[in-house]
Amino acid sequence: MKAFITGGAGFIGSSMADRLLLGPHNLVTIFDNFSWGHSDFLPRDNVGGRFKVISGDLLNLDAVKEGMAGHDIVYHFASNADIAGGAVDTSLDIRQSVIATYNVLEAMRHTGVGSIVFPSGSGIYGDLADQRIREDHGPLLPVSMYGAGKLGAEALISAFCHLFDMRCHILRLANVVGPRQTHGVVLDFIRKLLKSPDRLVILGDGKQKKSYIHIEDVLDAIFFLDAMCDQQINLFNITTEDAVDVNWIAQSVAEAMGLMPVAFEYTGGDRGWPGDVPVVNLDASKLFNLGWRPRLTSRQAIALSIKQLLERVPAETTRQAQA
Amino acid sequence: MKAFITGGAGFIGSSMADRLLLGPHNLVTIFDNFSWGHSDFLPRDNVGGRFKVISGDLLNLDAVKEGMAGHDIVYHFASNADIAGGAVDTSLDIRQSVIATYNVLEAMRHTGVGSIVFPSGSGIYGDLADQRIREDHGPLLPVSMYGAGKLGAEALISAFCHLFDMRCHILRLANVVGPRQTHGVVLDFIRKLLKSPDRLVILGDGKQKKSYIHIEDVLDAIFFLDAMCDQQINLFNITTEDAVDVNWIAQSVAEAMGLMPVAFEYTGGDRGWPGDVPVVNLDASKLFNLGWRPRLTSRQAIALSIKQLLERVPAETTRQAQA
Repeated sequence: MKAFITGGAGFIGSSMADRLLLGPHNLVTIFDNFSWGHSDFLPRDNVGGRFKVISGDLLNLDAVKEGMAGHDIVYHFASNADIAGGAVDTSLDIRQSVIATYNVLEAMRHTGVGSIVFPSGSGIYGDLADQRIREDHGPLLPVSMYGAGKLGAEALISAFCHLFDMRCHILRLANVVGPRQTHGVVLDFIRKLLKSPDRLVILGDGKQKKSYIHIEDVLDAIFFLDAMCDQQINLFNITTEDAVDVNWIAQSVAEAMGLMPVAFEYTGGDRGWPGDVPVVNLDASKLFNLGWRPRLTSRQAIALSIKQLLERVPAETTRQAQA
Repeated sequence: MKAFITGGAGFIGSSMADRLLLGPHNLVTIFDNFSWGHSDFLPRDNVGGRFKVISGDLLNLDAVKEGMAGHDIVYHFASNADIAGGAVDTSLDIRQSVIATYNVLEAMRHTGVGSIVFPSGSGIYGDLADQRIREDHGPLLPVSMYGAGKLGAEALISAFCHLFDMRCHILRLANVVGPRQTHGVVLDFIRKLLKSPDRLVILGDGKQKKSYIHIEDVLDAIFFLDAMCDQQINLFNITTEDAVDVNWIAQSVAEAMGLMPVAFEYTGGDRGWPGDVPVVNLDASKLFNLGWRPRLTSRQAIALSIKQLLERVPAETTRQAQA
């Protein structure tokens, strides 16, 4: 299989690249503009010339077409990762979610690539308090530009699949954690505590409660669904079944870093930033009913990702401080 | 009230302008690029300087901001009207629906206009055969670029309302008919029969069955909902309760033009064009439960619009032929 991974140097994309390259016959092209991506995340050796990196921008349609030609499937993982930033520069998600996805679809149409895997997110559902959310929930009223951009991208994927005979997997993911996170609450806490080990500023009131899923479980789910579902449009929530609050994460990070007691300070309000959804309760029964379950709970996923990030981030921080 | 109407020289926009100008204290600004709009549709006399026309493009954000400043409400009626064309030039709906709506919202944010009325459509729901569709239907899987663009625009409106404290009415309209239609099956049939009075080519098999609502009923519903609903997001299907098929419309147009018998010829297939949805069955109980009903059924709306279009179109056609 020849896979084209947008955002392939980022958190989810580079993890997918590594997984795909375990398959001895797979070829992987990574397309990334290195805005969130890291060259450190690229495959270590060139595994028999089976992967290629294109440094390019999805807003350049010609570059996307040229890079994509000859592939079998697109993993479209490039995205704006700064959800709070979308409320300041509202064009971020328009460009990096809507237009970028449109260009990916146009390139697929022009180059004849017929299959796309797209990570959407709980943000498309809006703010539903602790309501359990299935894939058929409506109406869809996102409260962030990130959520709006993802929903716009989903809509385009749906239309392209119908009009041009493509096939898609749209995966509405809980918060994904793991060693290569480039953003998110765990990474944020580790970075803050490396700078000031005795106090931690927590955005909001710390009671925001969400589900977290480990990257390895996400990759498993993607391959599972690819094998199990071949409708034209395959739409699934992917989440763990438990949820943890931000205070628990803060406590866990501080403990793992051996820093207790740490003074927790709160910016206040029930959400971390404009567009944040304080409680998310995705229902993944549609996926679970097919027989799949994540190996790690939210608590286990957070605990593992703290451990994994503590192997990566302090060294990075030291390097940056020395640079 | 100072109203800013995008697409104000088009079918729905110009009808709204006329209605608003009946209110002696209303001021109306029409913003239109005259791609679908007609100067014939502009208000006849300047009713005491209460309306203004700006010939401009929504893709020019600065022009939108400049034109919008000082208004109280935006009626955002500009849109791509060529649904079939979206499958040929896929960028049409991206530009004229998604980006145009984004620019309208950005201009609102910059100029402090806090209220928007947006006509969405049944296209956002996708192809659901004869299933009755309420506003809370999910998942939303549009099959046309038009539907995808409208859904993307809805998502942006929702996010902007939440992030920047705006208020919106999102109205998912059945097919709107009336004297100023610039597109649609009735107008298409009239134009074809004016050219060739003895035969009519019908796209698809003629069995596509949808609801139609007269523009005057749509305007009534918009004002009714404005008075009745002041949530941050007000989302309603607006439709009649009956539906008619394309064959019935063809027959009605031919009869009204005194042309029977006409040879009906079919292009075949169950839909008129790629992205067409052959059967649409919107459920407007949410609106009806508030006490509102359209005055005309689909049949009556079509019959009236045929009569009204036959007063406009033949003269236009003659003028064009002579020009």
